[in-house]
Amino acid sequence: MRKPGFDPGLTQQYTGNVRRFIEKDGSFNVRRRGGTWHDVHPYLHLINMRWPQFLVWLIMGYLVTNTIFAAIYYELGPGELGLSAGMTLGRYQECFFFSAHTLTTVGYGSIAPIGLGANVVASIESLVGVLFFAVATGLLFGRVSRPSAKIGFSENLLMAPYQEITSLQFRVVNRRANNLMEIEARVLLMTVDSVNGQVQRRYQQLKLEREQLTFIPLTWTVVHPIDSESPLWGVTAADFERRRAEILVMIKAYDDTFSHTVFSRYSYRYDEIVWNRRFAPAFTVDEDGELVLDLQKVGQLTDGDGPPALTN
Amino acid sequence: MRKPGFDPGLTQQYTGNVRRFIEKDGSFNVRRRGGTWHDVHPYLHLINMRWPQFLVWLIMGYLVTNTIFAAIYYELGPGELGLSAGMTLGRYQECFFFSAHTLTTVGYGSIAPIGLGANVVASIESLVGVLFFAVATGLLFGRVSRPSAKIGFSENLLMAPYQEITSLQFRVVNRRANNLMEIEARVLLMTVDSVNGQVQRRYQQLKLEREQLTFIPLTWTVVHPIDSESPLWGVTAADFERRRAEILVMIKAYDDTFSHTVFSRYSYRYDEIVWNRRFAPAFTVDEDGELVLDLQKVGQLTDGDGPPALTN
Amino acid sequence: MRKPGFDPGLTQQYTGNVRRFIEKDGSFNVRRRGGTWHDVHPYLHLINMRWPQFLVWLIMGYLVTNTIFAAIYYELGPGELGLSAGMTLGRYQECFFFSAHTLTTVGYGSIAPIGLGANVVASIESLVGVLFFAVATGLLFGRVSRPSAKIGFSENLLMAPYQEITSLQFRVVNRRANNLMEIEARVLLMTVDSVNGQVQRRYQQLKLEREQLTFIPLTWTVVHPIDSESPLWGVTAADFERRRAEILVMIKAYDDTFSHTVFSRYSYRYDEIVWNRRFAPAFTVDEDGELVLDLQKVGQLTDGDGPPALTN
Amino acid sequence: MRKPGFDPGLTQQYTGNVRRFIEKDGSFNVRRRGGTWHDVHPYLHLINMRWPQFLVWLIMGYLVTNTIFAAIYYELGPGELGLSAGMTLGRYQECFFFSAHTLTTVGYGSIAPIGLGANVVASIESLVGVLFFAVATGLLFGRVSRPSAKIGFSENLLMAPYQEITSLQFRVVNRRANNLMEIEARVLLMTVDSVNGQVQRRYQQLKLEREQLTFIPLTWTVVHPIDSESPLWGVTAADFERRRAEILVMIKAYDDTFSHTVFSRYSYRYDEIVWNRRFAPAFTVDEDGELVLDLQKVGQLTDGDGPPALTN
Repeated sequence: MRKPGFDPGLTQQYTGNVRRFIEKDGSFNVRRRGGTWHDVHPYLHLINMRWPQFLVWLIMGYLVTNTIFAAIYYELGPGELGLSAGMTLGRYQECFFFSAHTLTTVGYGSIAPIGLGANVVASIESLVGVLFFAVATGLLFGRVSRPSAKIGFSENLLMAPYQEITSLQFRVVNRRANNLMEIEARVLLMTVDSVNGQVQRRYQQLKLEREQLTFIPLTWTVVHPIDSESPLWGVTAADFERRRAEILVMIKAYDDTFSHTVFSRYSYRYDEIVWNRRFAPAFTVDEDGELVLDLQKVGQLTDGDGPPALTN
Repeated sequence: MRKPGFDPGLTQQYTGNVRRFIEKDGSFNVRRRGGTWHDVHPYLHLINMRWPQFLVWLIMGYLVTNTIFAAIYYELGPGELGLSAGMTLGRYQECFFFSAHTLTTVGYGSIAPIGLGANVVASIESLVGVLFFAVATGLLFGRVSRPSAKIGFSENLLMAPYQEITSLQFRVVNRRANNLMEIEARVLLMTVDSVNGQVQRRYQQLKLEREQLTFIPLTWTVVHPIDSESPLWGVTAADFERRRAEILVMIKAYDDTFSHTVFSRYSYRYDEIVWNRRFAPAFTVDEDGELVLDLQKVGQLTDGDGPPALTN
Repeated sequence: MRKPGFDPGLTQQYTGNVRRFIEKDGSFNVRRRGGTWHDVHPYLHLINMRWPQFLVWLIMGYLVTNTIFAAIYYELGPGELGLSAGMTLGRYQECFFFSAHTLTTVGYGSIAPIGLGANVVASIESLVGVLFFAVATGLLFGRVSRPSAKIGFSENLLMAPYQEITSLQFRVVNRRANNLMEIEARVLLMTVDSVNGQVQRRYQQLKLEREQLTFIPLTWTVVHPIDSESPLWGVTAADFERRRAEILVMIKAYDDTFSHTVFSRYSYRYDEIVWNRRFAPAFTVDEDGELVLDLQKVGQLTDGDGPPALTN
Repeated sequence: MRKPGFDPGLTQQYTGNVRRFIEKDGSFNVRRRGGTWHDVHPYLHLINMRWPQFLVWLIMGYLVTNTIFAAIYYELGPGELGLSAGMTLGRYQECFFFSAHTLTTVGYGSIAPIGLGANVVASIESLVGVLFFAVATGLLFGRVSRPSAKIGFSENLLMAPYQEITSLQFRVVNRRANNLMEIEARVLLMTVDSVNGQVQRRYQQLKLEREQLTFIPLTWTVVHPIDSESPLWGVTAADFERRRAEILVMIKAYDDTFSHTVFSRYSYRYDEIVWNRRFAPAFTVDEDGELVLDLQKVGQLTDGDGPPALTN
């Protein structure tokens, strides 16, 4: 019986060229169709939304709620809010601002509910207001406090000398100042190959020099040594292109500030591989015996192609 | 000594036919009795309740609290709230709306505590109000932000051709747009068998082609190959029914948006198994090289019973 | 070199009889001394406190804060709050209630800051109020939503027949209605023994028939078979007492509602062991094919000492 | 091919003496440069800030927001807030306090928006206020409830007799009253060595007598036995200094109150090692059979250098 190949949850079926599997921001190049509204989790949308869009939604929600309640107060008539005399603005405007006073529970009392209808509606609106802002508070805080690693990846994947052989290397850094613990890397090679006369996608996990670091205060050069057991043994740049190779990277770490496991995805396509270069060190020791890490240098290459250096 | 069989925490004792162990919504077919109020965790109830029921409880809590405080203000007499003159509504109504002003901390001041009694009660009520809405806020947000995977399962379990043999297959998909990482499946076969002349339930874990995927941007066809070591080797549809077979499925994954591990349970009963059919692919590659996944097609079968295809 | 014995983090040194290591509520029988206030985490105290005590602290905080601010307003003089005319209550009382209006942000306006001093203090107090209730809200919600398993343990530990030999058994149940997944048990035997002529405590992990269940919708009878490799092989009730045996139990599970790992500790002392009895089943199948679990029966024993039964 | 040495994520390159790798507070001795504002996560800063600094930021935010809104109200003119007559304080002051009433949603109504402009601005400000305090609430609670172990380490690392040989020992204690479960230790030796004629840093994991405890109600003496396989076999104090040895310690545990995994880092430099001494016990059994732990004694040494004792 044929052993099934490694499959990371992407398709093995080849039905056309896929631009790339993992985008530069870590998302998958997959469009979803056919979902029903039951599958939509509003929290997911509101938490993943970009900030300007989120704030627009929040302000829209505030305005629309006020507009609706203002219309109700207006319909109830002027006496209900005691607006008959001494009204400075248009009555609808007064209703709108009374609604805002109520929704935010400011309640100045400069306008106040007098009649039964206005009192009932205002009691409901203040409840709605408290609950509306409860959800807004939660979302705002959920967005702000959401655990999210900001792993920096070197722009290029290197085919670099390593001990007596060649290796595939890329470099990662924690771009944030928090501590990442027990950081792990997993690297997959995706190619389009002909297997038993059938064109299909193939996934192979690349063995790493080390798969986990205890912590990552500096940079980590993730190294796959290309020995005779590696699926990349003897592969050339032309092979990479012909087989439409994409190197998929998954980083997993424990974020010590947020107390949560965080994931980061990245991918390098065949045209992002640089041959026979090495990474330049990204840190120095200053005169006080302190290590200084330069985040700009995470992907910086050395000028020449000198002898193999220590990878970290 | 007899090695004890695998037991997933369900009973091995056969005392009658159990309709099914796991319901279609993932809950266990178990009713609980004999618990004391100490065992009730109100949060669990309020967080698991359906939305309409939750909102009814919330509104009831608001109304009941206001009704009680209104009665207290009413008992204190009209002077305490300065209601003697210029009263527009009935006195109890005014008390009720004053209570609502206080509970939600709107505090218009159109009605205000004048006497000592009303002031004391209002001080207490505003404290109650802040704490009541604190809990309501927490519950509301806890409900909205609760990590919950929405795994879609194929309607049927297939007995489908696989390489040279047969296999048991079902398909799962992440119905939501968030990322699930490190998704794992565990599949158990539950049967009612006669062991040493005693009728009892038996549980056997079914070995899967692969038990974990790194991520699941598309569908995952979970496959149990029925080789000579499988407890399903040579089993027929009639055997499944006679032994009252139920296939219990547990899916575990890490939800990257909620940063939590999520579980999903499902089961297939003997009458939900389809023989000699295969799943149709649920995704295509469009002209831009983008993968398009159709959530409707997760359980779709091919028309004929052609040659074995790639499972993913 | 002597292999160090298993040590669960308790002492091996014998300097006197310890009443018991783990109390019935799962806490350790350890008093702590010599900590500084730096080691106190107020959140831990406020979250672990019993409810009545917590509410007393909350109300005290509210009263004390109001008393202090009221004294400040009083010192500022009557004009600052416009209290000179039409005052209904004593001036300090008015100051106190104004403070309550401000702290809870009710702000009726029936009393309002007029002078500079009162305005400044009121601005500060309203800020304090919002932050005070922010913390109270968080604590209240933290208490309510805190993940906490409520594992029920059988009152007694049994020395019960098991297959052809004897076994040590106890039974656990999830007393709450939520789902516990991947439940694990670890059982340690603690004895006071003479090792190389030195009296010391010894800890031995007892091997279980099974250490993990996938889920626990019903009861779980945790079984340590006393075979020839068990440290309990041939041990009598008198031995247990003489060696002051205590069986320490740790249960670990994943709570599917709170999405957190939960722990539960328990212990059985030598005088809580019952010999030659078995547990009665705690569930039945009703006429609808539904399983019915009776939480009262988790520790119930059978009347006689009949043949060995299925443990689950 | 040379097997790469163990690397904890620190550098192997020797470009100068590093004062120490891990500071006494557990942070890494690394300065970061070249980050962009995209890499700054404001929540991380606000949650890691010291309390006085955090409160200053909070109060500053409150004052600045009020100052800005007060200026806007002032610009709108006196009629907008109805301040023309009966004004007690300077107009800007009245605007400032009105802003405070609005931002905190106290809303006394002693000053209230009359004109269109003031009403619009006040509607916006009350929204800003609710959201500002939503974030402040979240931060305040996030700070208070943040899981953080407070592991106490013995001041010194001992080279102490152990069975027939020598061992490296240090002692840890949970300084807080909460329960830590499944506590793990990992210990690394960092030295500056000459490898193949090249000066470089070397990292070696030190094998521990036991790497995990089930719980830690008392102290834990972490022991690395220096047998013939240890990299410390036959090492002298002079060697430690010459090789600039630093012992890096990482403690990982599950905090049962916060329901989170917590980490603690520590390091001992060559000049913090004490030779031929042992730890004194830090606990006693009192007359009630209760264990009493003295947190002050976690690092206390015995006076003489008697025979080897039990490590726990």
